[in-house]
Amino acid sequence: MAKNAQLLIRAGYVHKEMAGVYSFLPLGLRTLNKIIQIIREEMNAIGGQEVVLTALQNPEVWNKSGRFSDEVIDVWFKTQLKNDTELGLGPTHEEPLTALMAEHISSYRDLPCSVYQIQTKFRNETRSKSGILRGREFLMKDLYSFSLNQKQHDEFYEQAKQAYVNVFRRVGVGDKTYLAFASGGAFSEFSHEFQTICEAGEDVIYIDKEKGIAVNEEVNNDEVLNNLGLDKNKLVKEKSIEVGNIFTLGTRFSEALDLNYLDESGVEQKVFMGSYGIGPARLMGTIVELLSDDKGIVWPESVAPFKVHLVSVGAEKNNVRRVADDFYQKLTTQNIEVLYDDRDLRPGEKFADSDLIGIPWRVVVSEKTITSNNFELKNRASGVVEMTTENTLLQKLSV
Amino acid sequence: MAKNAQLLIRAGYVHKEMAGVYSFLPLGLRTLNKIIQIIREEMNAIGGQEVVLTALQNPEVWNKSGRFSDEVIDVWFKTQLKNDTELGLGPTHEEPLTALMAEHISSYRDLPCSVYQIQTKFRNETRSKSGILRGREFLMKDLYSFSLNQKQHDEFYEQAKQAYVNVFRRVGVGDKTYLAFASGGAFSEFSHEFQTICEAGEDVIYIDKEKGIAVNEEVNNDEVLNNLGLDKNKLVKEKSIEVGNIFTLGTRFSEALDLNYLDESGVEQKVFMGSYGIGPARLMGTIVELLSDDKGIVWPESVAPFKVHLVSVGAEKNNVRRVADDFYQKLTTQNIEVLYDDRDLRPGEKFADSDLIGIPWRVVVSEKTITSNNFELKNRASGVVEMTTENTLLQKLSV
Repeated sequence: MAKNAQLLIRAGYVHKEMAGVYSFLPLGLRTLNKIIQIIREEMNAIGGQEVVLTALQNPEVWNKSGRFSDEVIDVWFKTQLKNDTELGLGPTHEEPLTALMAEHISSYRDLPCSVYQIQTKFRNETRSKSGILRGREFLMKDLYSFSLNQKQHDEFYEQAKQAYVNVFRRVGVGDKTYLAFASGGAFSEFSHEFQTICEAGEDVIYIDKEKGIAVNEEVNNDEVLNNLGLDKNKLVKEKSIEVGNIFTLGTRFSEALDLNYLDESGVEQKVFMGSYGIGPARLMGTIVELLSDDKGIVWPESVAPFKVHLVSVGAEKNNVRRVADDFYQKLTTQNIEVLYDDRDLRPGEKFADSDLIGIPWRVVVSEKTITSNNFELKNRASGVVEMTTENTLLQKLSV
Repeated sequence: MAKNAQLLIRAGYVHKEMAGVYSFLPLGLRTLNKIIQIIREEMNAIGGQEVVLTALQNPEVWNKSGRFSDEVIDVWFKTQLKNDTELGLGPTHEEPLTALMAEHISSYRDLPCSVYQIQTKFRNETRSKSGILRGREFLMKDLYSFSLNQKQHDEFYEQAKQAYVNVFRRVGVGDKTYLAFASGGAFSEFSHEFQTICEAGEDVIYIDKEKGIAVNEEVNNDEVLNNLGLDKNKLVKEKSIEVGNIFTLGTRFSEALDLNYLDESGVEQKVFMGSYGIGPARLMGTIVELLSDDKGIVWPESVAPFKVHLVSVGAEKNNVRRVADDFYQKLTTQNIEVLYDDRDLRPGEKFADSDLIGIPWRVVVSEKTITSNNFELKNRASGVVEMTTENTLLQKLSV
């Protein structure tokens, strides 16, 4: 089993329903929601409007682009209404969103605009062995942009690129994540992927570390390298996880689904589109793959389910319980997110669980800490342990 | 088309993909999320732990209870993996959650506990003509409780009942919502429904308005009325919408899926379960059915997408734009949620849209209001209009 799934299951973050299908338990849902919130903030910052489309897909809109066929999209899950009408479960949402926007865009005054959702996709993958990195059912943030023309599109595309850089930095994988050139389509020579260097990755990229860019294996040829001004001999080959992609769609879907606007001179034009994807659960799995050690997960504070793991040792003793309960209340009052382990178990077992779960700060209350009038504070990432007074500790944790 | 769908589509809250399948647009998603947050707070207050299970359902767990069959649950959507394994799309989640909890509950010390999710259900309804009141794909908050025995279960059940009363009061339908007795099961004479009086409802209940309780049509017989101490002649017949239900499951699913615990004397016992459902979108549709007038929707402040609708009249004039822009900034700075209509349209059109959308407070900025050094404030529900200074207005809206 993939390392991310192993650790997340052992630590109680997720539950495997079947291959590629994972439920999120309380700890896992908290982490997932922190990642989602970071993505949401960055999408809102570039003007994205949030919606939620449906999983059930009406074949009518997909027939217009020719993509309802299993031969065109080979990962469809299909199902049937009682009257035998065949429906799909959305593997992506270009068609229904383009159809929807055709009801809201009619004039050049309506553009540019962008719409996103954080919604469940279904993809009938033949194999699904990478834990939460590649699910058959998984959350996706998919944003779609609508512009007057290529020029206006290009401006938004650059903003979206920067928003993506912000997301990956904020969740703690920025230093391992490269913008990679990948194959484009009819409207653009390249699409762009955000690839995080990781042994568990299914992709291969070639990185110019000086320039901070990469090319996907599929476009790693002399012509492309020459166009991009890259020197083949300076490129480093790495396995990587595609944590995001941005794509110029052009007028492919606006042509198929009649998404038009009237320009300033009253002439009908096709809307120029782009799409921008990030899988929040895949990103969570990537963080686990990158930032774990032999004891367990090491969450960056920005996405950790809690900031503090309060562990009482000798919880059956009245004074330990009283001091730990009291400190728990103080953290809660100050809105510091705390997970409280007050179970009556051996210290070694509780510490091992704490390392496995990977919350950034561990605070221990024991008879020893009480006698010295201190608390023990451990940083999960560095392993550094210090003894500290309550006041100093509360100040430190409230930053 | 159902009134809720008509109004919500016209006002730009939802988009109909097909019968019983609705996407949520920015305004609709904001309202839905406010309802969800109220439900979440009430579920957390009774100790519920939030999780998210999957839509794709493994037949293995459902075969243990015998409910994978289309003859037992007649609203299954089914689909297939590439290897032809048949999967279901979860119409409810007793089976997978019971199976999951069997990995986390083993001792009497683990009980009681309760787990909930706010997650998308799929039900293959033969007909679906009630807008967002009855979807084929819809959000559901389903909580499941796990107790030592019937006595511990009954205590939680009463708490859940009160949490439900709180939810319906907070979203603004409390005065029209009755606790109704409905048919139970092997472990309880009755289940309980929360029924909101509404002409658009598909249910019929008989209400004793003095006692504040009701019986569902299906149990409206002499024996039941006698048991409940109700007088047939005092009951009023009403059409109603089932906005919530709570149900004693007993050991039905813990028996089928081996959910056991060891009691204090080390003897294995079956966990005693309950289930508790609310459909957030159905609740949203109910609010629209109840609280709209001939001009449009009238949201209670607790669930309105925004608190204030700022409408500029004569937006093309510099002074109007400047004052309105400035007031928008002030509201935003004070974290007062505001939708700003700065479109260059006729006043009548903008006012009609504002009434249709149904935000509680409308503020108008026009040359007239600027000349008198005032703002015009209108309450959507009462229709009362007043002229007010900026300071008074900001104070009033920040409450």
